[in-house]
Amino acid sequence: MKDMLIDFLLSRKKIIEEQLLSYIHELKAPETLKKSMLYSLEAGGKRLRPILVLATMNDYNKNENIGVAVACAIEMVHTYSLIHDDLPCMDDDDLRRGKPTNHKVYGEATAVLAGDGLLTQSFQLIANTPTIDSNTKVRLMTELVKAAGPEGMVGGQVADMEGEAKQLSLKELEYIHENKTAKLLGYSVVSGAILANAPEDDLEKLQLFSYHLGIAFQIRDDILDIEGNEEVIGKPVGSDTYNEKTTYPAILSLDGAKQKLVQHIEAAKSELHNLSIKAHLLEELCDLVAQRDH
Amino acid sequence: MKDMLIDFLLSRKKIIEEQLLSYIHELKAPETLKKSMLYSLEAGGKRLRPILVLATMNDYNKNENIGVAVACAIEMVHTYSLIHDDLPCMDDDDLRRGKPTNHKVYGEATAVLAGDGLLTQSFQLIANTPTIDSNTKVRLMTELVKAAGPEGMVGGQVADMEGEAKQLSLKELEYIHENKTAKLLGYSVVSGAILANAPEDDLEKLQLFSYHLGIAFQIRDDILDIEGNEEVIGKPVGSDTYNEKTTYPAILSLDGAKQKLVQHIEAAKSELHNLSIKAHLLEELCDLVAQRDH
Repeated sequence: MKDMLIDFLLSRKKIIEEQLLSYIHELKAPETLKKSMLYSLEAGGKRLRPILVLATMNDYNKNENIGVAVACAIEMVHTYSLIHDDLPCMDDDDLRRGKPTNHKVYGEATAVLAGDGLLTQSFQLIANTPTIDSNTKVRLMTELVKAAGPEGMVGGQVADMEGEAKQLSLKELEYIHENKTAKLLGYSVVSGAILANAPEDDLEKLQLFSYHLGIAFQIRDDILDIEGNEEVIGKPVGSDTYNEKTTYPAILSLDGAKQKLVQHIEAAKSELHNLSIKAHLLEELCDLVAQRDH
Repeated sequence: MKDMLIDFLLSRKKIIEEQLLSYIHELKAPETLKKSMLYSLEAGGKRLRPILVLATMNDYNKNENIGVAVACAIEMVHTYSLIHDDLPCMDDDDLRRGKPTNHKVYGEATAVLAGDGLLTQSFQLIANTPTIDSNTKVRLMTELVKAAGPEGMVGGQVADMEGEAKQLSLKELEYIHENKTAKLLGYSVVSGAILANAPEDDLEKLQLFSYHLGIAFQIRDDILDIEGNEEVIGKPVGSDTYNEKTTYPAILSLDGAKQKLVQHIEAAKSELHNLSIKAHLLEELCDLVAQRDH
């Protein structure tokens, strides 16, 4: 990985993480709730979604400052979804990134409410940024609902649960991952492009780019569940097979899944090559997603 | 109750209920999710919050049409909060308004996601109304987050759970009800006033009005738990005592609570009398809250 990309990732991760904590500290809310929200926000992770916002703005040569709040809003939405997904009634996970899940530490009721709180507050981050005009805020919030709500992530999660222990077709599997994963990744890129006043033509291409990136991200996840290093990925290898989850390798074979991953990454990059700008960072992030080991 | 008020309540309830269903039917989302969201939205209730939006607009002599989406958004937020409150990890209720609770019918996972979906979608209702300008939309969403998020309803619910089976002071009890109940009622009135372009002075008075109305609403709830008719209120009388909940009658005695109710209703009305308009409907709704039997 090039030094420039590493610098970008580390410096932006730091900005996002500091800002996320300060948003929660500022809240006038019960301490237990704030601690529980902070616990999951501090649990780390790649911060891929906020980084996509800032990388897109950077590629469009736009000052990234006005994007930080939107980037944090997306990370809050992503974090709420992880807290709710881990609940006993959903995936019933005890560990996330090697740490006890939110409900294991704060109890189920507080975990549900911490998720609800993060989701609600995420809209405030967008609404309160003084440097974004109201029309853009409304557009950003509309797109966020589409990506995160019943027509996006929430719908994908319902489909995912309904598909558990069932043999899914490739089409059904792609519906789940498009909605559960790709739409919020896509929103990260598109919100960055909206904030950078990218041409509407570019927005459509970036939406397609993100679709391919999101599916590639998920295929890589499935491959890591077979070939990954447990200590690096932070969960047991083979958990998909154990949980009878339909995966890309299960449908396409491991080699077939690897081929599919390459195809999606190439399709993603070819969208980038048709943009009005040269998207250096997004292209490098593409390779990162394809090759990541966790 | 006067005929005019009855007409108003029935006709607006019908408009709200029809509109709520059509918002869900339109969604491109998994059928199970839509059914689960519809189930709780259709479960009835007084629709007090949306009616407060439209009543406020009517009192300001403003066409109520542009308020319907905002009124529905508030009812979605209220409904999501009921679904999550009823979960086994929260109040563990099997019945609501005499019908099985959402998780009893659709399972816990879908109930959590139906709540998440309603909360997320509520912002879309505001963002998508073409007759509201963007500045007003952003203001309405900012105020909704304050009322419904960690600094409002979600914070109140955390405090409520932490206070269970504890002897609370009057101050602690009021913190819970102000946040859990009064703030969303207050937002209903204030959003109606914002949509009606009410003077800023009036907004402050309406916020105070709503605080008193919300606390009065809760005191009446506590009194009904002692004196109510089980069939009319739709749940067993005495459940607060059974669940060891701190109530106004427990702190102030039944007579003391009744006095307090009258005081809050009078304080609410006195705020109305200082407005720039004559708030006929809001004043009548005040009496309705004080005297309601369910």
